[in-house]
Order: sequence, then C-alpha cells, then structure tokens
Amino acid sequence: MITEGLKGRDFITLRDFSKNEIETMLEVGLRLKAENAIRRDHRDVLPGRTLLMMFFNPSLRTRNSFEAGIFQLGGHGHFLEPSATRMPTLEGEDVAYQSERIADVARVLSRMGDAIAVRILGGAVEWQYEKSLKIINEFAKYAEVPVINMEDNIYHPNQGMADAMTLWEHLGRDLRGRKLAVSWAYSPSTKKPIAPHHDFMYAASFFGPDIVFAHPPEMRIDPDVEAAIKANVELNSGSYRVVDNMDDACDGADMLYAKNYVCLDLLPPVTSEARHDEMAKLFGKYRCWIADERRMRMLQRAGFFMHCLPCDRGFEVADAVLDDSQWGTPCYDEAENRLHAQKGVMASIIP
Amino acid sequence: MITEGLKGRDFITLRDFSKNEIETMLEVGLRLKAENAIRRDHRDVLPGRTLLMMFFNPSLRTRNSFEAGIFQLGGHGHFLEPSATRMPTLEGEDVAYQSERIADVARVLSRMGDAIAVRILGGAVEWQYEKSLKIINEFAKYAEVPVINMEDNIYHPNQGMADAMTLWEHLGRDLRGRKLAVSWAYSPSTKKPIAPHHDFMYAASFFGPDIVFAHPPEMRIDPDVEAAIKANVELNSGSYRVVDNMDDACDGADMLYAKNYVCLDLLPPVTSEARHDEMAKLFGKYRCWIADERRMRMLQRAGFFMHCLPCDRGFEVADAVLDDSQWGTPCYDEAENRLHAQKGVMASIIP
Amino acid sequence: MITEGLKGRDFITLRDFSKNEIETMLEVGLRLKAENAIRRDHRDVLPGRTLLMMFFNPSLRTRNSFEAGIFQLGGHGHFLEPSATRMPTLEGEDVAYQSERIADVARVLSRMGDAIAVRILGGAVEWQYEKSLKIINEFAKYAEVPVINMEDNIYHPNQGMADAMTLWEHLGRDLRGRKLAVSWAYSPSTKKPIAPHHDFMYAASFFGPDIVFAHPPEMRIDPDVEAAIKANVELNSGSYRVVDNMDDACDGADMLYAKNYVCLDLLPPVTSEARHDEMAKLFGKYRCWIADERRMRMLQRAGFFMHCLPCDRGFEVADAVLDDSQWGTPCYDEAENRLHAQKGVMASIIP
Repeated sequence: MITEGLKGRDFITLRDFSKNEIETMLEVGLRLKAENAIRRDHRDVLPGRTLLMMFFNPSLRTRNSFEAGIFQLGGHGHFLEPSATRMPTLEGEDVAYQSERIADVARVLSRMGDAIAVRILGGAVEWQYEKSLKIINEFAKYAEVPVINMEDNIYHPNQGMADAMTLWEHLGRDLRGRKLAVSWAYSPSTKKPIAPHHDFMYAASFFGPDIVFAHPPEMRIDPDVEAAIKANVELNSGSYRVVDNMDDACDGADMLYAKNYVCLDLLPPVTSEARHDEMAKLFGKYRCWIADERRMRMLQRAGFFMHCLPCDRGFEVADAVLDDSQWGTPCYDEAENRLHAQKGVMASIIP
Repeated sequence: MITEGLKGRDFITLRDFSKNEIETMLEVGLRLKAENAIRRDHRDVLPGRTLLMMFFNPSLRTRNSFEAGIFQLGGHGHFLEPSATRMPTLEGEDVAYQSERIADVARVLSRMGDAIAVRILGGAVEWQYEKSLKIINEFAKYAEVPVINMEDNIYHPNQGMADAMTLWEHLGRDLRGRKLAVSWAYSPSTKKPIAPHHDFMYAASFFGPDIVFAHPPEMRIDPDVEAAIKANVELNSGSYRVVDNMDDACDGADMLYAKNYVCLDLLPPVTSEARHDEMAKLFGKYRCWIADERRMRMLQRAGFFMHCLPCDRGFEVADAVLDDSQWGTPCYDEAENRLHAQKGVMASIIP
Repeated sequence: MITEGLKGRDFITLRDFSKNEIETMLEVGLRLKAENAIRRDHRDVLPGRTLLMMFFNPSLRTRNSFEAGIFQLGGHGHFLEPSATRMPTLEGEDVAYQSERIADVARVLSRMGDAIAVRILGGAVEWQYEKSLKIINEFAKYAEVPVINMEDNIYHPNQGMADAMTLWEHLGRDLRGRKLAVSWAYSPSTKKPIAPHHDFMYAASFFGPDIVFAHPPEMRIDPDVEAAIKANVELNSGSYRVVDNMDDACDGADMLYAKNYVCLDLLPPVTSEARHDEMAKLFGKYRCWIADERRMRMLQRAGFFMHCLPCDRGFEVADAVLDDSQWGTPCYDEAENRLHAQKGVMASIIP
C-alpha cells in the first residue's frame, strides 16, 4: 500500500495505475466499508468537497453510489444532466446557444467543484466506439481538478474496482490458482456496453487468476484491451484463455461472470452506423448462452455468479441463480461495493 | 408515547401502526419543529444517512419536504426520476435494457441507502387502482431498509401525518366532540388522487372526532378504507357519517377539508381503462361543490379550511377563503407540517 | 462596509441596494474566497439552511455555483425544474392540475426552505420582456423568505456581482479613471439574453469607471436601465458614453466585455411575438463584431477580456483570445467568482 502520488490524479482507466496503487484504493475502500458497518461517521475525509457528476446516460447504481459516497465522505454531489445545462461538445460540433465547448465547460466546472465525473456511452455518442473516451479525455485535458470516468464505451474502471473488491471478499486477495469463468450471455437488447467485461477482467488480472473467457466467435472484445489483460494477468502469474462455449468456461471454475454485450463488428467504426437489427438477429443464434442452474452446478462447490447489473432476468441469467443466496448474493455485494470502492477512489485522488 | 419497535419499520400505510405509535411519531415531529423554530441544529439525529427518493410523478411539497427534512436531520436525499434510471418493473413487465426488476432495484438501493421512498400513482400506472400500492409493496418485500410511501393511489400516509399534526395544533390533541367536515369539491381536472381524503380521515380517526363526509353519490371512496376509518374512529369514541351535500357537512363544523378527487367507478378495475371524458362530464354536474365564503361562515366561529395542495383556486376553493388569514392559513400550516411530520417519521423508523 | 439591514432582504436587482451594501456583500464573498483557498471550512455560516432553486431555463454556471455555494456555507440546495413540480403561474394562467398559482408555490416553499432562487427568461416566458421579472416579483410578494433572482430578461444581479468582484481583482476597488469597453458581439444564435450587459455595467457603475459602450444602432439596451447606469456612474465620478463601433470602445481601454444579445425591437412588447428569423438576418450585417486579437491589442498593455459564458467561440470571441492566459483567464475568474460573489450575497441576506 502506497500513500503518495494519488492525490490530484484523474481516474479514467485502470491502465493508468500500478498494482500497488489499485491495492491502496481498494484497501481504503474496505476500511471505509468497515467504518460504515459500525456507523462510524467519516465525513471528515473530504469535508466540504463537491463532485460534479455529468450523466449523458441513465444510471441507477453509478449515480446513487457516487452521490451517497461523496456525501458519506463529507462532500456533496451535483447530479447534472446535459439537458439541464448545455451540451458539452468537442471543437467543430458547436451549436450556438445549445452547446458549449468542453474546453470551457471543464475549465468552468473546475473553478466550482473539486472533481468532475462523466458518464457517456452508447447512444449518447451514436455508438461511435472511441468518441466517448475522447470526450472524457477532453474534459481531463482542460479540467484543473481530477476527472473520474463513470463509464465510456471502452472502460468502466469504477465497476472494475467494485468487481475486484468483491472477488477479494469471496476468494481472497490472492487469485493465483483461481479459475474465473467470464462469458458473453444472451439478451433481447442490443444496447449493452462491453466496458464492464473489459474492466472486470483487467481489474482481476492484477491478482493473477486463470481467466477463461467464453464468447460466440462474432462477439470479440477490443483487441487492444484484450492484449493488456493478457499481459497484466501473465505478469501477475495468471493466465488468459478464450473458449467458444460457456460450459468449457464454467467447468470447475470458482465463479461465473456472464453478461450480454454488443457486437463490436456491427458498430462504428467497423460499420458506418450502428446495425442493431442485424445484431438482434445474430444474438438470436445464441439464446442458450444463459447463466442457469445447470451451469452454476458445473462450478466449484462454493461457486457464485457476478454481473454488474442491471440484468435481463430469464435471458442473461435465470431467476433461480440470482435469487439463490449462495449463487446470487455476490451480485448484490458487487453492486454495494460500487459505493465502497468508489469511496476508496475518491478519498485517494480528490485533494 | 412509546420508544420501541419503530426503528427499521416500513411506513406504507397508517393502518400498520397503533395509535400509540402514530402519537410517538407526531410528538417527535413536533419536538423537531420547535427546535427548528429556535434554530437549534439537529443534524445529529440521522447523521450521514441517505434517503433514496423515487418519484414516478411530479411533486413540489413531497419532494421538498423530504429533501429538506432528511438534510435537517443530518442526512441527504437523492432525487430520483425513473427517466434518469431505468423503469423499475414488476415481474412479467420487463423490457430489456429499459426496465429493471423491482426485486433488483430494491436490493441494490438497499445496499446504497438507508431508506427508500417511493411516489407512484395515477397516470404512472395507467390509473390501475391497486397497482401502485402493489409496486410499493414489492419494493418493501425486497428492500433491506425501510420503505416509505410518498403516495400511491390508495394511501398518502405522510400527508395524513401532516394533517393530524395540523389538527392537533388548531383543535388540540383530543378531537372528541369536534365535528370535521370533509367533502369532495369540483375541479375541471379529472386527475386528482383520492388518497389524501382516505388518509386525512384515517389519520384523524385516531383522535375520536365526529367526521361528516359529503360527496356526490357517484364519488364514493374505497369501501375497504371507509370501513377502516369507521371502525377506528368509533374505537376512539368518535363517529363517521356520510351526507350528500356540502352544506350539511359544514353546518356547525370545526373545520372544512374539501378537495377534488377522481371517480373510482370510471377507473380500472371497475372500467377497463380510465374514462376521463366521462368523468369530466360527471364532474360538470357538481360545479357548485366549492369551499366558498358562504360555506366557511356555516362553520364554528374559529373554523378553518384544509387542503393538501396544490388546489385549483376558483374551483375547489375560493381565493377569498385561501387568502383569509383565519380560514386559509391552516392550509399552509398543513403544507409546512409535511416537513415536520415526515421528520418525525424518518427519525423514528430509519435506523 | 455595513453589517446591518441585509438579513431577510430579497436580491432581485442591484438597483435595490446602496453602494455600501454592494461593497459589504462583495467583501464577504472575497473573505469566503480566501477561506476556500486555504481550505478553511465555513459550513457554520448558514448551517442547516436550504435554498430552493427553481430553474425554468438550462444552467451550468448558475446552478453549480449556487448548489456548491450553499453547500460550502453549511446548507443544501434543492435543484427544482418546473417539469418535476407543477408550473408556477400568475393569476389567470392556471391550468387545472398542471399549474399551481405562484401565490401558493411561494408560500409553501417559504414554509419548507430558507430562501427561494428563481431563473426565468427568454423562451420560458415566450420572450415577453417584462413578464419574467413580474414572475420573480410575484414570488417575492408571497414568499416569507428571501427571493434571489438567478436571471430574468432584464436583470442578472448575481452575474453583476461576480463581474464587479472580477473587476476589483484585476483593476482594483477604485475604477475611477479606468476605461471599460463594453460591446455587443455577433452570434449565429438569436437567443442570448441582454441582462448580463445591463448588470455588468450597473455593477461597475458603483465604482466610477468610464464606460464606453459600443453596439450596432439596432441593438439598444433597455432605456430605463441605461438611465440608471448613467446616473449611478456619474454619481460615482465616472462616465457613460455610447459609440457605434467596437474599435472606438476598445481603443486604450483597460478591458473588453463583449457578448451577443437579442434585439429588443424584434421582441415583445415592441413586436407582438419574437421575430428570430428577422433578427438572424439583422445580426448577419454585423459579423465583424468579434473580440479578436487585433481588437485586444488596441487595449492597454494589461488589457483583458470578460464574458459571462457560455460563449460562441469563433463568433463572439476568437479562440486565440479566450485561450490566451493574459487575455482570457479573467473570463474563467469571472465564472469562478459566481461562486464566491453569490456566497457573499447568500451569507449576507439569508437569516
């Protein structure tokens, strides 16, 4: 655990942080979680600080965990929807009096708050894969305070932190020798982000597990992120392997992470625009990709299920799995850990 | 006044509470009101607690009184609109990626907050009478923290508490021998809820008044609630009587509560869907049902008017009544008491 | 600096305040700014107070500065959009169940909060010039707590306070002998308010500068406000002069304030309804009215640019001006001073 070098940093992707730094933020989060459990007030951690939360997309977990988290640390979160401000835009996309250049929004917000958090993905950027991260980076370029990524098309680092915290709690801090089954799953929706898969695996990779990732051939993840996951997990004495069916992943695994996500090959920049109809048809071939009781029984005895939520019950995961106290509870722990992990991040980086 | 057994309870309908418990929460609320009056800070009552407020319908009084109330107690309220999250739905009504099962929303919010408050009624459930309470009960079933009803189609218990507090202030804690005139009133709108009438009368019934309730024959209230009001008021040495004109109710009464509400026989489940046009025609027959100066003069000398607001001035109630300091002020006291009564409830039930 | 007579006052227009009172509020704001800079907590200034902020128009700076400001003083701001309440309306404009008379909204909010802040202008009142102030005055008439104007069609007094604070910081508290260049500027939008110009000049007028105001002949300001500016600046040993081109204003000035605003002669009450198309055509004649590098070089050596933001980069002001650290930084200081100036106002008037 290191205590230097985090204050003032942006939190945009886990790839910007060392294992040591990630561990520090997780330990801080767990310490605050324990204090919460005994109702010990810690509003002296970030007294009077303000977090400006900008949501271009709907949110339940992210919004409530950040808003409650900054409050419990002594601060206040502003819930900002672009519809109630003006649309922050990149240079060249200005619309007089309806938009405001991010260069200005970021500078102005920096003068009024202690950190800026942004969620932007999917439809909010017409499914242009790299654009949402570009926008968050533009905020970071001009902001004089830390910028926190609350999910873009590529990364969801706060979800990754909550996932790592949940794995620590259920499997221990050392994941070497543990088999993590990770999988695509079916949903009638074609709008689910891929970022949670990326960051579940990247966050886990710091602790050396054997990751077995199952997906239909068409549902590849981002090759650059995949290479980073593989390199990081191997550096930490683990392994990364891809298989083409859920059963192979589940067999003997310690846990199963299964969730739907979009097909990158039917979205920009591969296609000129999002092809959701085609994607729905493609997904239809893989309806049997569900986390059900049979597959849960293929795991180790104390095996469990994880999903960042919201989930499509009956499609991605069976009710019987989610509602089982052994299998399903870690999923709600994972949601709760959004609060604690993010408090660890905020307490570490907000000056 | 009892001090045990309230922490951790849901607050969904007044019918779940004993007279002793209701009195305790009102006394706590009045104590906090007095502290407010001398600017004595009481943010140590619920320090660091979060209240997750979910509004499926617009709100001025309810939202501001809860948000200010939890803040004054030391906590923070999250203002949540379903449009900014995903629609919480009952099993069988899921829409992939647009909705989220209440079983999950309630469990997740429980992990992030200390109480969940829900307002859902009227158009938000297509006027299906029992559905809104069913949804709130579904939240309560899965939540691990107290659930507070901020108004459904049947109950508005926090309004009832504010009404009782206002009656206490103006008529005393013992309402035996007091005549309360309660009435339907005309409005060009056909979208006003019936819950405030239910809970005005049910809340008052604990203290033994003589309730005389006037309504056009078509504007019956819920028979199950009516039976509960009658039983409770009689148990507490009062009486309940229905008349078919406002004048009979007003004659010699200590106060008048008059407000429009929908015709239950033109709404589901009686009809297959809401018949607002027919309702407007029906209401048109009863334009003279207004709280005007003539009727106010039929009351006892110190008589006054109550209404949960917002009201339709000139239809339900004359400007001359509302703007009169004797007649109309209790109406604004009633609005203010939303704040104090709800602080009494929250301070009592939130652990 | 006076310390009496401000508590409980409304803050609707600067014209209601003496120079002494304005100075007091600015000094309080600067004191709080200095405390912020050394992270000295001052949440004991308005502990437990609530500010009810009602926004009929989008807002970035105003909303965040008020919300952060009241929080830093120990209170809490409620962010209220009329869509989430019911539309507060003047008498005669009621719509049953969709609107609520301001007389009632103001009285109810007064019972629940410690101050009411309102922003309403432009499209929210169909561009009826005087109506927005009339609405704010209606709130003030019925409210029992201070009412704060967060911008109407005529006044933006909190912007004026921030402008004055910024001028103090860059030019000193005594503006006698200083030349302030104020100008209309081109924008493709025809929806920019005139209130910031009014209150930039009125706020500055207390400190005796020589104001040279350039605008195309069609873009007159409000003659009543203009007379007040002229009278006040002369009373304070300064002068006010109008010219018909930007260069004359800029020549040798200490700073340049340039911003687009609507043509009052193409809006009600002059015309029966807003003529935006005609206005766009008119504006087209004046595309060269931009704050560019050439004009900035006409200023004194340490000259700088001010604008209340958001600005249309490339139209009202060149990127090279805004992004220059000497010329452009005061513009962001001006945005930041919204926070500090408003804290000075709130700390002074909220009881």
